[in-house]
Amino acid sequence: MSESWQEGIKILLRQSKISFLATQGRHGPESSMAPFAIHEGDILLHLSKLAAHTMNIENSAAIGLMICTPETEADSPLALPRLSLQGEATPVTEDRLEAAKAAYLSAIPYAESLFGFGDFRLFKFKPESIHWVGGFGRARKVTQGQWYNITLAP
Amino acid sequence: MSESWQEGIKILLRQSKISFLATQGRHGPESSMAPFAIHEGDILLHLSKLAAHTMNIENSAAIGLMICTPETEADSPLALPRLSLQGEATPVTEDRLEAAKAAYLSAIPYAESLFGFGDFRLFKFKPESIHWVGGFGRARKVTQGQWYNITLAP
Repeated sequence: MSESWQEGIKILLRQSKISFLATQGRHGPESSMAPFAIHEGDILLHLSKLAAHTMNIENSAAIGLMICTPETEADSPLALPRLSLQGEATPVTEDRLEAAKAAYLSAIPYAESLFGFGDFRLFKFKPESIHWVGGFGRARKVTQGQWYNITLAP
Repeated sequence: MSESWQEGIKILLRQSKISFLATQGRHGPESSMAPFAIHEGDILLHLSKLAAHTMNIENSAAIGLMICTPETEADSPLALPRLSLQGEATPVTEDRLEAAKAAYLSAIPYAESLFGFGDFRLFKFKPESIHWVGGFGRARKVTQGQWYNITLAP
């Protein structure tokens, strides 16, 4: 792999459609999975109100989020390129809902029918702390400015 | 998919070598990745003392752990068979270390060289709360008794 770390992040974000959430449960942190899309540099999550992670987020907006190259794509799991993000997840406000929904469905078209259910809700996750692992021994902090440069680029 | 949920869990545990951890960080839950192995029904993690999740676990043993079918294996991410576990991760005690190391290396042979480094340590995670998603709309709680029946079976 000789691409820049910026290019590595772009490849990961194109390649992967799922994220792993760390949310605050009653007895400790809980790990769960949710598909994601990027919109205006933020991460969109479409979550069922019936799911534990959604109730956890409504109680405590501070969450962790990991996006990881599928393990079938590498020989050694430790070398899997991945992003570890921390920040707050909040419901998408009414005025941004149509644009966010369009962006989400453009990334995850099969979710169309879920928008018909009353129990799903769009959340926006704003990364505040960003850590990139590009492979074994290749890790770095990414600033918010660098993140938006990468994710807002055409 | 017509296999039983027990068989579904066995398939997942054979197919997947990585887990996603939710640990307690200073500013909220953090999401990270670690390879895993099963030993005597418990989950072994081999973690670097330099990694944030290891320091988090040393501060607070209650963690969440997810094992998920690689996304390349399904058409719809929401249907990915997966396990969400909660429990405590504690260092493997000296008297169990050789047996645990052998079990870990049998699942993850490439980690052999990491055991030579002083900064890696084996942790044992004991699942207390276990939730299985077998596909879209197929979810169930798994008791500890059921878990050990599945993972201790030959």
